[in-house]
Amino acid sequence: MYPKKIATDTAKVLQSYLTYQAVRTIIDQLSETNPNQAIWLSQYSSTNKIQDGEAYLEGMMAENKELVLRIMTVREHLAETVLDFLPEMVKTGITQANIEHRRQLLERLTQSQPANSAPQVETSESDSDVDHQSN
Amino acid sequence: MYPKKIATDTAKVLQSYLTYQAVRTIIDQLSETNPNQAIWLSQYSSTNKIQDGEAYLEGMMAENKELVLRIMTVREHLAETVLDFLPEMVKTGITQANIEHRRQLLERLTQSQPANSAPQVETSESDSDVDHQSN
Repeated sequence: MYPKKIATDTAKVLQSYLTYQAVRTIIDQLSETNPNQAIWLSQYSSTNKIQDGEAYLEGMMAENKELVLRIMTVREHLAETVLDFLPEMVKTGITQANIEHRRQLLERLTQSQPANSAPQVETSESDSDVDHQSN
Repeated sequence: MYPKKIATDTAKVLQSYLTYQAVRTIIDQLSETNPNQAIWLSQYSSTNKIQDGEAYLEGMMAENKELVLRIMTVREHLAETVLDFLPEMVKTGITQANIEHRRQLLERLTQSQPANSAPQVETSESDSDVDHQSN
């Protein structure tokens, strides 16, 4: 495992993702104030892949300098607003998802009754039915 | 702008990305210890999109329960190792990238001499040459 490389790669993905979210935010805003530009930005962003946020911004410099400035301002604001919450959110998300997957695995391994939904109605004392499912 | 929705979406993307990095780590490890399984996992992960990490893990439960457990352990470890560094890394990354893009914009706007590379060798006192480039 190379945690340093993984941290760098993850930071880069996150930077591009916040750029994408900034673009989406601006498309939303423009659809109120300048619908034509909203359509243009939406189309530009779907053909000029935003997978690499920095290349996307460099490409847009030749098209619309004001939008480049606006995207940079919004993504900086988004970074200040959301980044600090992410570590705890993602750790909690992974822990909870892992618990859920482990629960499902255990069910499959023990081939017990699926417990996807909590028992809603106990119609009878069906002790003898517990092992009737083989999945 | 909907910072809460954006934070939730970003956390989800990050969770799936760490799952993807966990899978890559395990493929690396398996290529030493169990090359056949490394190939299988690599192929499985390219056809069963890992874009949604949780759906990917659920799908794999029917294929290989041990690998599901291993991916969950590794991504939990990755989360503990890298997440806390990300906010500062991404903020710094965005700030620096924005400075660089603004510098380029300013150059384009003022059509001044490109300063892509710092002057490396001062061969002469060329005060009169400063304005010879028009890009």
